[in-house]
Amino acid sequence: MPALEGLGILCPMQTMADVKPRKRVVIAGAGFAGLNAAKVFADLPDVKVDVIDQHNYHLFQPLLYQVATAGLNPADIAVPIRAQFTKSENIDVHLASVQKIDLEKKIVTCASYDIPYDYLILACGAQHSYFGHDEWEPYAPGLKTLEQATEIRRRILTAFETAEDETNVKKQQILMTFLVAGGGPTGCELAGAIADISRTVLLKDFRHIDPSHARVLLVEGGKRLLPSFPEDLAQRAEQDLKKLGVEVRTGAMVKRIDAEGVQVGDEFIPCQCVFWAAGVEAARLKMEPPVDMDKNGRIRVQKDSTLPYYPEVFVVGDLAAFEKEPGKILPGVSAVAIQSGRHAAENILRSILGEPMLPFQYFDKGQMATIGKNHAIAVIGKLKISGYVAWVAWLFVHVFYLVGFKNRIEVMLLWVWSYAFSKRGSRLITKPEWHT
Amino acid sequence: MPALEGLGILCPMQTMADVKPRKRVVIAGAGFAGLNAAKVFADLPDVKVDVIDQHNYHLFQPLLYQVATAGLNPADIAVPIRAQFTKSENIDVHLASVQKIDLEKKIVTCASYDIPYDYLILACGAQHSYFGHDEWEPYAPGLKTLEQATEIRRRILTAFETAEDETNVKKQQILMTFLVAGGGPTGCELAGAIADISRTVLLKDFRHIDPSHARVLLVEGGKRLLPSFPEDLAQRAEQDLKKLGVEVRTGAMVKRIDAEGVQVGDEFIPCQCVFWAAGVEAARLKMEPPVDMDKNGRIRVQKDSTLPYYPEVFVVGDLAAFEKEPGKILPGVSAVAIQSGRHAAENILRSILGEPMLPFQYFDKGQMATIGKNHAIAVIGKLKISGYVAWVAWLFVHVFYLVGFKNRIEVMLLWVWSYAFSKRGSRLITKPEWHT
Repeated sequence: MPALEGLGILCPMQTMADVKPRKRVVIAGAGFAGLNAAKVFADLPDVKVDVIDQHNYHLFQPLLYQVATAGLNPADIAVPIRAQFTKSENIDVHLASVQKIDLEKKIVTCASYDIPYDYLILACGAQHSYFGHDEWEPYAPGLKTLEQATEIRRRILTAFETAEDETNVKKQQILMTFLVAGGGPTGCELAGAIADISRTVLLKDFRHIDPSHARVLLVEGGKRLLPSFPEDLAQRAEQDLKKLGVEVRTGAMVKRIDAEGVQVGDEFIPCQCVFWAAGVEAARLKMEPPVDMDKNGRIRVQKDSTLPYYPEVFVVGDLAAFEKEPGKILPGVSAVAIQSGRHAAENILRSILGEPMLPFQYFDKGQMATIGKNHAIAVIGKLKISGYVAWVAWLFVHVFYLVGFKNRIEVMLLWVWSYAFSKRGSRLITKPEWHT
Repeated sequence: MPALEGLGILCPMQTMADVKPRKRVVIAGAGFAGLNAAKVFADLPDVKVDVIDQHNYHLFQPLLYQVATAGLNPADIAVPIRAQFTKSENIDVHLASVQKIDLEKKIVTCASYDIPYDYLILACGAQHSYFGHDEWEPYAPGLKTLEQATEIRRRILTAFETAEDETNVKKQQILMTFLVAGGGPTGCELAGAIADISRTVLLKDFRHIDPSHARVLLVEGGKRLLPSFPEDLAQRAEQDLKKLGVEVRTGAMVKRIDAEGVQVGDEFIPCQCVFWAAGVEAARLKMEPPVDMDKNGRIRVQKDSTLPYYPEVFVVGDLAAFEKEPGKILPGVSAVAIQSGRHAAENILRSILGEPMLPFQYFDKGQMATIGKNHAIAVIGKLKISGYVAWVAWLFVHVFYLVGFKNRIEVMLLWVWSYAFSKRGSRLITKPEWHT
């Protein structure tokens, strides 16, 4: 079992014997941030860790749009949290929702039990936000969970099936209209993938409709797509989306969504397949005393990612508002989550050893987004790439991460193979109800 | 495009020109029977075929218990029906439920349209029957659909998760009690697989429970397990189940199932994970005029598998009561479904050509059932095998069928690989609700 020295945190004179008694760390959330934090404690038997998550699996969210468009199975992008820590006896995994956190008493309350902590890492992530219009949700599911992804898949595939049997041409066209709200990476990837499958995989399977005539709209309220990317790359992405047949509307505000369609600015677009990728807000946690949050519900943290006045409480990932410079918050991307999760865990180890905690510094490795198949855009440091080269880079990076994560290189090779040859293995319309 | 001659049905003098005008065949149901019937008509452009199913996929039901026990993904055992007939322009696939059949007017009514037919093949299969106790269903899902399989998977995995966080030992034991009602192949396979995963895959992932202490009960009302198998093989299966740790109760009647547990004979067994594999009944179809059915809802057919008085209507698969000899009905297994589906389609071709229809003769290739991993029993003609050899035979047969059906030999090899090494890739607890 590796000692703390192996992590480069302990100085050579220190040993684990100096750090007893056993400290108790609770990690709420097993997304990228929580899971990577927990991994730092794996095999350090003198730290007892409780990981709490409302799902029994860790989800590789960047590929969720692939599940929504029938390219991957749910199990391809999810691993049981428990299975990550089989050999780390100091790590307990709980399938539970956090109900309340008492910062003074240092207790996390779940539905049927309390867990006390010496250190707490809050990594509960974010969910979709409808900007105060929660009544839109039934008509426009977001894409944050596996359940939402299979629901979107069900809606897309059912739309084509229903259109096939519809004799009224106007209704057929409405059924084959897909509107994605939000021009960030998720919205662009989802719109691109819908356009892509309707023009490739589904093309020859129908007799009475031409799936390639499906209308795919991408609606963004801001003045351009992908605001986190440089302007020239975003323009390239917009061109690639248009080549795929996606109608891109920027500066277009969604004003209403109901069962009949979407009001975009002055225009009403009749459609039944609407997907929401327009806004997120941090998970709402009940904390005693209440903590300071920004308008998106993200918790304001100090430079070392702790809460003011509570140096034993860390907030990481999408839940945290890390101020890069005054007024500028780090984006809610997986790299920030992974790095901040690890950093918080390492700060806890430093604190246990009586060392000063270090500020969190995000190392920006860049970002990428795919546009349909064969196209992507990427920024890596000062390098900007686009088109096929960027897509190959995207594939390489995601396969690399997924392999590390699934530990099954052969499954990933298969995915690349079937992805490259336009097979969509998981075109299943499954229903929410199981009973007959 | 092959002519009818290629099927050995047309005599050399006949050509397709003799069989016009185009005949319309409707196939209700795309299980083993319906799909294999439809395949007979593929690429015979002078016969127009409409396939109706309530799912968009064909399901390989014999491996459903593998989905229920996290060994396979839903998509591994399902293929889109449409994708089977991409190149057969004469075959239309409809995602719809059959509402009514008018035998006199020759019309099948679906929710939003009618389909007229010249020939009709009814292949709607069977569903679970609770012997008049439908109130048991919420507590004891059956295993006939993908939704039921993922629900069973959710219940099994959630039971272990809840037990892990339960401090009351008695409640823990109740949570870890699994009861399977019904000692046919499905019940034996499901009970064996639950025992197997609790003693292998799940074994080391928990800290506060020992999954190998899970109690798995298999309850059968009849005097022995697997009544369709020879007695010595059934005894061997019972021994193998007991070795896996399954408590086998034969001659034990389920008298009540509720949220607290199951009344088996005089004993009440407290448990929350109950699965139903005890009885099936044929799908109930509304037919005008009503037809003659046996007590399990199976439609009585003539020797050529047509309805009395309606020589253009065929009933096949689990929906049909084929009398092998007086009082003896062919079992509801996939081999009967496949053969009867094909035979009905070939009889239709004979009828179109003005030839006499042939009686349906079932060629019994044998049957097999797995017991956990590494054990199975099989009857092939007069040959009876059991144990590891039978299991390898079982694996070979299922891989062979699945490969033909998924057309993805590499996926199957992977499955064999991960199955052989006790990996369970799809241990996901997904919920029925998608909204947040």
